[in-house]
Parts: sequence; C-alpha cells; structure tokens
Amino acid sequence: MSRANLDRVVSEIADEMRQRPDRGEVASYIPELARVDSKSFGLVVIDAEGHVAVAGDSETPFSIQSISKVFTLTLALGKAGDRLWRRVGREPSGSAFNSIVQLEHERGIPRNPFINAGAIAVTDVILSGHQPREVLGEILRFMRFLADDSSVAIDEAVAASEQRTGFRNIALANYMKSFGVLDNPVDFTLGVYFHHCAIAMSCRQLAMAGRFLAHLGRNPSTGLSVVPPERARRINAVMLTCGHYDGSGEFAYRVGLPGKSGVGGGILAIAPGKASIAVWSPGLDASGNSHLGRIALEALTKRLGWSIFGA
Amino acid sequence: MSRANLDRVVSEIADEMRQRPDRGEVASYIPELARVDSKSFGLVVIDAEGHVAVAGDSETPFSIQSISKVFTLTLALGKAGDRLWRRVGREPSGSAFNSIVQLEHERGIPRNPFINAGAIAVTDVILSGHQPREVLGEILRFMRFLADDSSVAIDEAVAASEQRTGFRNIALANYMKSFGVLDNPVDFTLGVYFHHCAIAMSCRQLAMAGRFLAHLGRNPSTGLSVVPPERARRINAVMLTCGHYDGSGEFAYRVGLPGKSGVGGGILAIAPGKASIAVWSPGLDASGNSHLGRIALEALTKRLGWSIFGA
Amino acid sequence: MSRANLDRVVSEIADEMRQRPDRGEVASYIPELARVDSKSFGLVVIDAEGHVAVAGDSETPFSIQSISKVFTLTLALGKAGDRLWRRVGREPSGSAFNSIVQLEHERGIPRNPFINAGAIAVTDVILSGHQPREVLGEILRFMRFLADDSSVAIDEAVAASEQRTGFRNIALANYMKSFGVLDNPVDFTLGVYFHHCAIAMSCRQLAMAGRFLAHLGRNPSTGLSVVPPERARRINAVMLTCGHYDGSGEFAYRVGLPGKSGVGGGILAIAPGKASIAVWSPGLDASGNSHLGRIALEALTKRLGWSIFGA
Amino acid sequence: MSRANLDRVVSEIADEMRQRPDRGEVASYIPELARVDSKSFGLVVIDAEGHVAVAGDSETPFSIQSISKVFTLTLALGKAGDRLWRRVGREPSGSAFNSIVQLEHERGIPRNPFINAGAIAVTDVILSGHQPREVLGEILRFMRFLADDSSVAIDEAVAASEQRTGFRNIALANYMKSFGVLDNPVDFTLGVYFHHCAIAMSCRQLAMAGRFLAHLGRNPSTGLSVVPPERARRINAVMLTCGHYDGSGEFAYRVGLPGKSGVGGGILAIAPGKASIAVWSPGLDASGNSHLGRIALEALTKRLGWSIFGA
Repeated sequence: MSRANLDRVVSEIADEMRQRPDRGEVASYIPELARVDSKSFGLVVIDAEGHVAVAGDSETPFSIQSISKVFTLTLALGKAGDRLWRRVGREPSGSAFNSIVQLEHERGIPRNPFINAGAIAVTDVILSGHQPREVLGEILRFMRFLADDSSVAIDEAVAASEQRTGFRNIALANYMKSFGVLDNPVDFTLGVYFHHCAIAMSCRQLAMAGRFLAHLGRNPSTGLSVVPPERARRINAVMLTCGHYDGSGEFAYRVGLPGKSGVGGGILAIAPGKASIAVWSPGLDASGNSHLGRIALEALTKRLGWSIFGA
Repeated sequence: MSRANLDRVVSEIADEMRQRPDRGEVASYIPELARVDSKSFGLVVIDAEGHVAVAGDSETPFSIQSISKVFTLTLALGKAGDRLWRRVGREPSGSAFNSIVQLEHERGIPRNPFINAGAIAVTDVILSGHQPREVLGEILRFMRFLADDSSVAIDEAVAASEQRTGFRNIALANYMKSFGVLDNPVDFTLGVYFHHCAIAMSCRQLAMAGRFLAHLGRNPSTGLSVVPPERARRINAVMLTCGHYDGSGEFAYRVGLPGKSGVGGGILAIAPGKASIAVWSPGLDASGNSHLGRIALEALTKRLGWSIFGA
Repeated sequence: MSRANLDRVVSEIADEMRQRPDRGEVASYIPELARVDSKSFGLVVIDAEGHVAVAGDSETPFSIQSISKVFTLTLALGKAGDRLWRRVGREPSGSAFNSIVQLEHERGIPRNPFINAGAIAVTDVILSGHQPREVLGEILRFMRFLADDSSVAIDEAVAASEQRTGFRNIALANYMKSFGVLDNPVDFTLGVYFHHCAIAMSCRQLAMAGRFLAHLGRNPSTGLSVVPPERARRINAVMLTCGHYDGSGEFAYRVGLPGKSGVGGGILAIAPGKASIAVWSPGLDASGNSHLGRIALEALTKRLGWSIFGA
Repeated sequence: MSRANLDRVVSEIADEMRQRPDRGEVASYIPELARVDSKSFGLVVIDAEGHVAVAGDSETPFSIQSISKVFTLTLALGKAGDRLWRRVGREPSGSAFNSIVQLEHERGIPRNPFINAGAIAVTDVILSGHQPREVLGEILRFMRFLADDSSVAIDEAVAASEQRTGFRNIALANYMKSFGVLDNPVDFTLGVYFHHCAIAMSCRQLAMAGRFLAHLGRNPSTGLSVVPPERARRINAVMLTCGHYDGSGEFAYRVGLPGKSGVGGGILAIAPGKASIAVWSPGLDASGNSHLGRIALEALTKRLGWSIFGA
C-alpha cells in the first residue's frame, strides 16, 4: 500500500459520500447534539508507518459519545484486570443500546461494556471511591496522551444537556445500583459518564488515539506501550462483537473490522497491523450508528482489502 | 510457520487437553449423542499449502450438528443470494441457541442463521419446493465435495433420535410457520434439518471442508472456487459474531477466530489466509459449546499468533 | 327482578347492539371461522328460577372455541384435583392468548388454563393415557349433559381447519412437550384440543351449560350437583382474572362479572347467585374478545345491578 | 350475620393465626421495615352497620406501603377522570411488582395503577404542577377523613429509608420520564410517592378508610359520598385483578374478594355490600404479599360465605 494510493482511496470515498443523498437522522435525544451540521463528513486513516491520510472535515471536533467507551474500557482493564468482568459481560446484547430488559433478566449485570448500562458499570469501576473531578481529569489526560494533543476537551454544553435529559441512563444506573452492581453514588458515576461521553475530538485526534489498538497495544511511532498485546486483541474482539449495539453483526458483515460508533456520528475502526481509522458523519441509521460512516468504511475495506475475515 | 512447528504445536495441545480433568458435560438432550465417549479428542489443522497437522482422534467421525449450518448457509446464499436475508437476520441473538422469545418479539424472523430457528429457516430456503430426499442428497454431495471424501454420511440413528425428541425444534419451526416465514411443509423442512445436523464427519474431513472459508472462497490445493471472495469473508463474519450462540463474544475474546460449534462437541475455526481448523471434544460448557475445544483453540491461536484481532 | 323486566332489558340491549356500526373484526386466523355472518347477535340470560330471556340469534350454533376451556378445566379438576396446578398456573399472563414468551421464562408451565398453552396442558391432563376419541366423546357428553341438549356437536370443518393451520398451537404444544409438561403424544393432545374448541353451541345451550357456575356448582332446576361449591367459586375466580386474555382487567373493570370469551365471538358470563349469561357477536376487539359482546354485557350488568363489585 | 357471630369468627381466626409456625419473611429491602416484630397480627372487620370486630394488634400502626395506592388511585380518578388511563393501563401485569421489562415493551406506560411504576404515574397525575408538600398534605387529609381519625401520620423514618435505598423505584420513574409519561420533576413525584407509601395506619383505621369501597362509594355510617357507585365498583375490579402483583390470581382464587396488599404486611379487602376488612401480619410470601394475612382472609370468607364468586 503506497501512501499515494491510500491518500487517493480516502479522498475518493470522501467525494462519493459527499454526493450521496441518504444521510440518516442526526441524533435528537440529546438536544445539544441536534445542532450539528448533518452535512459534515470527515475521514482519517493513519497507517502503520504513521502516515496520515485525511479527507473532509477531518479537523472539526465532534462529540465522540460512545466511542469514549473503548477508552474507559481500556482504563478499567488497567485498573481492575479481569475482575472487571464480574461487573459486566462481554456478549452481544441482542437489543438496543439503552435497553433495560436484559438487566432485569440477568440480575443487573450488563451484557457488555459498550451498551450504555455496561459503560456506566465500567465508569463505576474506574471511579472506585475517587472524586468524579479527579477521575474525569484522568480520563481526559489519557485521551490527550493517546491523541498526542493537549487540546482535547470536554464539551460542557453537551454534558449539561445530557445531564438534564438523560433519564434513561439515570434509570439504567439506578437499576444496576438496586442490584448492587454499582459501588459509588449514582450521581458520581453518571456525572463522570455523561462527561466522558461529551469529549469532543476530531477524526485526526480519534484515529491517533486508536493506534495502539491496531498495533498490539503500542503506538508504533513513539514505541510507547499502552496495553499488553493480548489486551489490545481482546478489546478489538469486544469492539467487533459489541461495538455497534444491535447493528454489530451488520457492521462485521459489511465492513469486517472491529469498530465502535457513537451517536455523535463518529466511528473508530481498527485494521489490525495496518491502520487506525476515524470517520464522522452525524446522520444515524435505525440502530443508532453513523449511516454514511459505515458505508464509507465498507468502501474503504473493500478497496484496500483490509477485512479481518480474508484478504 | 514451518510444518514441523505446526505439527509440534498441534501435538502439544492435544497432549495438554488429554491431561485436563475438566471436560464439560456431553449433550444429553439428543439421546443418541449421549453415548459418545467423553474422553475423545481430535485436532486437525490444514494450512494454506495443504499440509495437514493431526492429533488425537482425528479420523473418528462425530455428529457435526450445528456446524452443518455453515454449509447450509453457504448453499442457501448460492441459491437465494441476498434474498435470504428477508427470512433471517445476521445479528447476534443475545439468547440461547433454542430460544423462542426473540421470534415472538420480531415476528417470526430468526436473528441469525446459526441459532436453531435461523438454520431451520435457511433449510427451508434450500428446500424451496423440492423433495426432502433430493435436497438432502444435494447437501450430502456438497459436504463430500468440500471434504474431498465420498465416505461422509448421515448417521441415521442420530437423525431418528432427534426426530423423535426434538420437540423444541418442532416448536420453533411451527412458530415460524405461523408467521409465514417457512414456505414448505414443516415436516419436510424439519426432516432435512434433522438429517443435515446428523451428518457425521471426522476432524480431518471437517477441516478439509472448511478450507474455502480460509482462502477467499477457493480451495487452494485444487484451485476450485466454491464462493466469491466477498461471500467467504461474510460467512466468516457471521461465524464470528454468531457462531457460538450466547458464547460468541467469549469465543471471539479468547480465541479470536471465526468459528462454528456443534453440540456434538466439534468446532470448525477459520484463520483467514492461514488455515482451516477442526477440533472435537464432546463435553460442552454452559453455552452448549465444546469446553476443551474452545480451550484448545485458544492455546493454538495464542502460540501461532493467528488471532484476527492483531498478530 | 321480575321476568318481564329481565325480558325487556335483554331485548333492549339486543336492539341497541343491532344498531351500532362498530362490530370489530371477525377472526380470520382460522379460515373456517371467517365465513360467519358478522352481523349475527345473540343474547340469552337464564336466571336462578330457570327463566330464559332471549334476544337475537339465540338459537344459532356458533364455534365456542376458548369458552370450551371453562368446561375442560372443570373436567380436569374433577379428574386430577389440585394436582392439576402442577401443570398450569392460575395467574393472569400479561400477554396475548397465544404468547410463547412466558413459557420460555417459566420452564414450560403455562400461566393459567385459559390461554392457549394452558388449555392444551389441561387437555393433556384429561387425556392421560386414553384414546383421543374416547376423551372427546366424554367432553361432548359432558357438554350435552350441562346444556341439557343432546344435539350439541363438534363442527368438523372448523376442527379440520384449525388442524391444518394451527401452527402456533402446534408450536406451543411441542414447546411444552420439550419441558416435559405434556404426557401424551403431542398429536393426540392437540387433536382433542382442536376438536373441543370446535364444539358449536347456541347462546341458549351455552347459558344453560354455565348454570352450575352461577349456583354453587348445582343446576338449580334439576338440583343435580356438577362440582362442589368451592370449586364453582374458584372456576369463577379464574374466569374473572384470566378469562379474557390480555383484556381480562378491562372486562372486570367494565362488566364486573366472571366471563370467558372465544374467538368465535361468544362470551359466557356468570352472575353468581343470579344468572348464567351467553352472548354472541362474531366481531372481535384488539385483545381477541367479542367487541359487541363485551359492550352488551356491560350494559346488562349496569342496568340490572349485577356487578360482583358492588350492587 | 349477627354481631356475636362475626366477633367470634374474627377472634377464632386470630387465634389460629397466632399458632401457625409459618409466617413468611419480613420485607428487608426497605431497611426500616425490617425492624418490625414478625409475630404481630391484627384483624379488623367493619360491617355494613358499622360494627367493628377486632382481634390481635388491631390498634398498632404499621406501614401501609402499597395499600396507599388504592387511595391515590381514588384521588387521581377524582382529579383526572378517565384521562388517567392514558398514563396507566388496568390489566394485570404478569410480572413482579417492581418489574421494568413491561415498560420497555409498552413504551413506558405501566400496566396498572398497583404495580410500583403505575402508582408512581398515578402520583404524578395527582401532583400535576403543585408542590410536593401541598399534595402530600392533601393525601394525608384524605386518609384522615376516610379513617375518621386525625392521628393518621407519615412515618418519616420509613420515607427517608426508602428515599435513600429505593434505587429500583428511582429507575422506574426515570424510565417513564424518558418516555414522557411523567410530567413533574422525577424527584418531586418520587418524594410524594415514597411519603404516601410511608403512611402508618392501624388495622382499625385502614378498615374504616376502606368502607366507601364496600358500599358503593359512600360511608354508610355518615352517609357521606366519596366517589360515585360506578367508580367504587371499578376500583374494586382493579383491586381484584391487580391488587396482589403476581399473586393476584391466587388471591382471587383462594380469598375471592377485591384486595390490596402492601409490603408492610397489611391487606385491605372489600366484601361488597358486606364489610371492609383489614389484616396485618408482616411476614410475606414469594410474591410480596402478607402470608398469614392471605390465609386469614381465606378462612374468613369461607366461614362467612363472603366470596364474590358465589355465596
């Protein structure tokens, strides 16, 4: 794969996406998110050598929302190791991102760390007795370190918007609390959760932050290790089976890469050994995943032969 | 990977498995299956060059059961193409292999082709107006062609045993029929289903039959194409997200390969570009997947660096 | 209550119903039932003295369908006593008459004897090793005895229609069989079930057959005892809480009498100590209960002050 | 029924209950409730003439908990009339008192006013823009008026205990809020809900408060009308079908009276036209209803022939 070829493919795909009429629906359940320009589109691919191929709105920060769950999972595994899995499963849920039914049938243990309930449980593990402010600082420093960019910040308006209207997440958290699955005061855990979901990043920053997952836990440019190789593989596995809520099977089928979407319209996708990829298009499909983001990634893996299921 | 190295790893793993006291429980819900020797263990790996590494009971035929669903899915996609997906989804189910709850909530459309209901719907598509006997012949010829072995056969005792006692599958089929999801007489569809699940194959035959999935749809030894490259990738994707029922997340997390298990204790696993793998150990875990089979595959991918999530 | 007054109220209500434009939808899932005239309407009230007030199509036989479940419950309690309750519960189901979800969550034990699954389990208890033909004869003789009319018969066309198309009931029965809840061959149990649901009776016959429930288990005209007083009360209690599927609360709220409906459009209602009532109007509401039947009964209890909840 | 006979039956039953070893388990999920003496037992029957038959701890106030839901339903129907039923159904739920599953399947509308979610929705209707303190005052005045006793009060320790630990109710309320089913701030609605559940009353006070339901909406001693006759009947109907959570069918089957239980161990039962009855025994059965309370009521209706299903 030459740099020129990668640049060309990325640029072509961005052009094609710009011309498509179908864009999905911008998330409206968090009022602040509904304000974003539905025509935005960004795509960034960073290969193993560190070459950065960009197209579209690659420098515009957007709300990463659930993509943050990949990084809080990474932190929680660092803190609690396999004990984390007493609090959250790692199976696809077979239901919507904010379903509560499964919790009732499985005594408050969320199915995986990427549905809302699971990510709240993961946040609770990271919090473990500390002050929300401290922990939030830690998460933000981690994101800045990974993105190699100290300008990564929380969008307080989005966090406040969700804190005012996030009744379903409040329900999920209290429900888990009633089963003893959360250790900290519900308000503390949710405060941290709403804020880390409100981190704003550009495609470039996000793709940079995901590089350790593409390269066995290390940033190949700096050589710094973030997690052991096995853990990187396993996080990728959870992304593949659970990263797109009830559209995870579809994403695996069409794109063939581990990935994690957010309702802000971003997707982080990992081509193991090859590249870290971030795409952003705010319109969502019925499962709550970026509509054009998924289509762009499908085109990308097809043209570059990057599917993990056969190349 | 030298042949000697592969042979050594396969042989070591078989030795280690033989010494483990934990073997899981042999399936008893199909009376005929309960008779198998719980100490049986076979492992076969066939690499891209066609080298066959074997260990243990690699030539003993066992009931492939749900592993047959990979091949009926392949046949059905060949016959119906993407129209197949009107009858069955491709998302993980989040429930047990024989659950009926999801069908009621989703108007009789099974979640994916690898849970029982989904595989029955796939069988119905293959049947499409033909006589059960003809279609069963076609499936058997396909398996013999893929395994390159005309001795592959149906174990009629197992088929009869399931036909007598498979009330839950009869319930699933009639339930789908009530929603108009099945076209053929229920008895016809179930007859074919029970019989293709009762195909008996050895690890060697099974690993041989899976080779096209490891190599973009072609058998690399004969050069014969079975399916287009894209279809091979996609079948692998469905295997990864749905191949182990409600233990699919766990299998992806630990083994990191697309795979399909059967309650006979077999697992077919695919290392894209590298190898087709079959393992057999009759004792099952709580999700109905081969207990030692999964552990053996985990050891194998770790030692050979074959995980699709980073190598 | 004078006879003249009762005659007048019954006649008025029949007139009012005849003029209403809203009639609900005639059941179409059993093809044979769809042929009935949607304008039919019959109402019969038999008071404690044996006076029979009639209006409309009171002598036309219709398919009693699920109303037969009251009588098979009576027979099964006579045969098995409280042991019956090991096979079936007596709680409202909170779901549709043909739901299978509850069975999966409660290990194949149906919630109550009046949902389809429960009535199939009750039929299995009555069958208990006998031949379907004998048991069907026994049920029919019981109905003729209660109705004091030897002309009561099974509509074989309806039975055959359901046997050909009753996939959902076949699913329910096989599902219970898989949990060991049914003792007899599924075909036997379903054969009897489909046939007793296909009994055809007129409103007059049905109201006559229900008299023992209104009068502590005895027919007050003949003095013959059918069940002990306690059992009559308890059957009435199950009718009140479970007799109208997921519209049972609504029926209790509006009508205030124990009652059992059938998809043929009939309802048998019991005013304890006062009367046995049968109404028939084939159009159904969303819960599968006779639309005008329920409205007629609401008018009747209001005008006569017969609600069991305060008079 | 002579007064002497009623007094004797009430006294006999209390004696029998005192000697039984089986008492059920005192509710522990509200810490403050767990402190009550499990041996307490009270029974009060007030007949149509106003005669009060008492036995056991008839004057000891206990936490009425969910029994308060009968009275908030009465208030809400007075305020909103049939519009109330847009926010809550009136069908048995087929699930536990605190289940959230049904809410997800039915878009946040609780099944009936007597499960927790339903009672929270009813409380929200009563609140409708007013201050929690005012509304709580109104509820308390209503209870004092009905009980004809100004000493009825809220047990603040119980209210505080539930406010600290009632995570499941907080979850239910926020869940409904996310569907727009609640109008007021969740904290307001829950504040009122927790407090009215924490009203403490003796059996005597409770039986007095329930008299209007036994007598077509009027207190027969004072002649004061509380609700129209039809409404009294309908509240009784909802009590019968939904008053004992997932044990409502059982209560109807065994006792044969409309009734409402609370986890404090109290039950209010209504014999229409005959009596208002309150019983208290803190130990609960598996469905969360008073174990001995139900048994005592079963004995009472049997001996007095008060079942609404035939006398």
